[in-house]
Amino acid sequence: MKIRLKDIARMADVSVTTVSLVLNNKKTRISEEKKAEIRRIAETYNYRANVNARNLANQKSNMIGIVVPDIENPFFSTMIKTIEIYLRDQGYYAIIMNSNDQIKEERALIQQLINIGVDGLLLTLSHESFQKKEETIEYLNHLTTPFVLLDRNLEDLPVNQVYFDNRKGGYLATKALIELGHQNIGFMRPPEEIENGKNRYYGYLDAMKAFGYDVKSSWVATSEFKIQGGYEAGKKLLRADDLTAIITSNDMMLVGLMKLLTELNINVPTDLSVVGYDNSSIFQIYPKKITTIEQNIYDLGTQGAELLLKSLHTGHHKTSKVVLSPKLILGESIKNLNLSKQNN
Amino acid sequence: MKIRLKDIARMADVSVTTVSLVLNNKKTRISEEKKAEIRRIAETYNYRANVNARNLANQKSNMIGIVVPDIENPFFSTMIKTIEIYLRDQGYYAIIMNSNDQIKEERALIQQLINIGVDGLLLTLSHESFQKKEETIEYLNHLTTPFVLLDRNLEDLPVNQVYFDNRKGGYLATKALIELGHQNIGFMRPPEEIENGKNRYYGYLDAMKAFGYDVKSSWVATSEFKIQGGYEAGKKLLRADDLTAIITSNDMMLVGLMKLLTELNINVPTDLSVVGYDNSSIFQIYPKKITTIEQNIYDLGTQGAELLLKSLHTGHHKTSKVVLSPKLILGESIKNLNLSKQNN
Repeated sequence: MKIRLKDIARMADVSVTTVSLVLNNKKTRISEEKKAEIRRIAETYNYRANVNARNLANQKSNMIGIVVPDIENPFFSTMIKTIEIYLRDQGYYAIIMNSNDQIKEERALIQQLINIGVDGLLLTLSHESFQKKEETIEYLNHLTTPFVLLDRNLEDLPVNQVYFDNRKGGYLATKALIELGHQNIGFMRPPEEIENGKNRYYGYLDAMKAFGYDVKSSWVATSEFKIQGGYEAGKKLLRADDLTAIITSNDMMLVGLMKLLTELNINVPTDLSVVGYDNSSIFQIYPKKITTIEQNIYDLGTQGAELLLKSLHTGHHKTSKVVLSPKLILGESIKNLNLSKQNN
Repeated sequence: MKIRLKDIARMADVSVTTVSLVLNNKKTRISEEKKAEIRRIAETYNYRANVNARNLANQKSNMIGIVVPDIENPFFSTMIKTIEIYLRDQGYYAIIMNSNDQIKEERALIQQLINIGVDGLLLTLSHESFQKKEETIEYLNHLTTPFVLLDRNLEDLPVNQVYFDNRKGGYLATKALIELGHQNIGFMRPPEEIENGKNRYYGYLDAMKAFGYDVKSSWVATSEFKIQGGYEAGKKLLRADDLTAIITSNDMMLVGLMKLLTELNINVPTDLSVVGYDNSSIFQIYPKKITTIEQNIYDLGTQGAELLLKSLHTGHHKTSKVVLSPKLILGESIKNLNLSKQNN
């Protein structure tokens, strides 16, 4: 049996308008019990208000799909919350899905969101999709649901994108150390396919070159973008006994490095200077303020959502690339070697 | 125009089965270009495979809705990830929504998920919904979509629930301190309506009573479940200059307390012992291992999802309450006062 709004109205003894208002969570003056009754009837007969109505009339759903690679990463959970609050203010629902950084899952989730009937998509693509860049571009070119890429940059693709200048971030971190007298600077980078991490590494190389310093191969270690990765990369880097500083390319790695330094009784910054990347609020537990590169997640989330809603409302297909600048936060985890030299 | 599977099949020159397989992300042997073409046609004509088919045939959607109060809290983002991975293995999609701890929003999201056609719901209700407990029980009683409550306990309601024994957690934290010679123990609690925090506080009172110790009113401070809340509650508690230890009722509060102690140059555990709650992995950045109460989020997520799927598959309405036990993790943030006394 296919139930209609007016069937529910008849059963609950209210107007069709009242039923529609209740099922769409709009304000009405009827009692909570009546509301509950209307919902109960709708559910019992499997009535699906928005979806059915929308499919028939081809209307908007006011739902936006968000796909992220790792919901557990504080960077993404904060980004999602920012977007969700912005969208709610604008009258949209955020539907969130987690791809677990797998391309196959990501495609299935996007299709599922399209099936549900979202008006638009905010996508932070998996790293795997960057390994298969051409296929990904082909895939995105065929998506007819409007979308914006967040925290990801596809050079050759004329689609809406909002992302940080990661190369600049790596440069700023390295320059801060150089200006305090450091030359022997180590860098902890993630595997090649992680574009953001790779660009931070390139920024480090840029700065070393700009100031005329060489980089020894023993000063660079590659490992996972996680706590354990930072711990292991730290072990490799400490074998180079000429380093005065280490830059990590995200905060999870920094946690692993700090754990190692505590175990080895290496003092920060007396024995070794460190720089993080992300400025996680939870780091306030650490007794010293850590020098770090801050990315404004609020700007990323709201500018991405704004761009998407604009393209939904105007319906035009002009695309924008918004590049956000990271910022250096100077803390107490770097030793000023210039001062030490003057004192000698 | 309402497009049917066979229209798409005709346009793409493939079989109806092939179209169905492609739009449902199942394996087919046709080329990537053909797949893209089928998806493009489906989107152009606004075809919504699963949703329409399901509404007509009243079939399952294989979607499970998850609603949490704060996606930014590492506890919930880890819980979601655990659930998502479990559901995927079982052939279900997780659709995640964030209520921002507001009852009105929560109800709207649940209705939206029902409209989308989820098979079941995993709900961590807002604190506001516990302030309006009777209304909430009334509301949940009328939900006909199967659901499980996660990390929340509604005593009188015969519905599926999986939650931690918070009172035991507070007890274990306090007992650990008492066994090391502490009697003057402070407690940092969240506002009354936060049930989990309130029960941790009751566990503290239980332990103090069990060992025959009084609790001075100056030893208890109430504040927000956040970093800033811990910082401010810390200021209040430090006015009681007879405390040898402080227990915080979540890890965000502990971060705020530690920040304050660093500013005031108070050493942990020499000058003051501290105990956290949640065992956040990111705390590994702190140079000492922190004594804390660990809740197994993996058990919470998978047991909740398992319970929901079981009730979907069997269709019966027998309900279970699963109470999970928290665990004490003994670290170096507590001073052994028994030893100090022996040395005197």
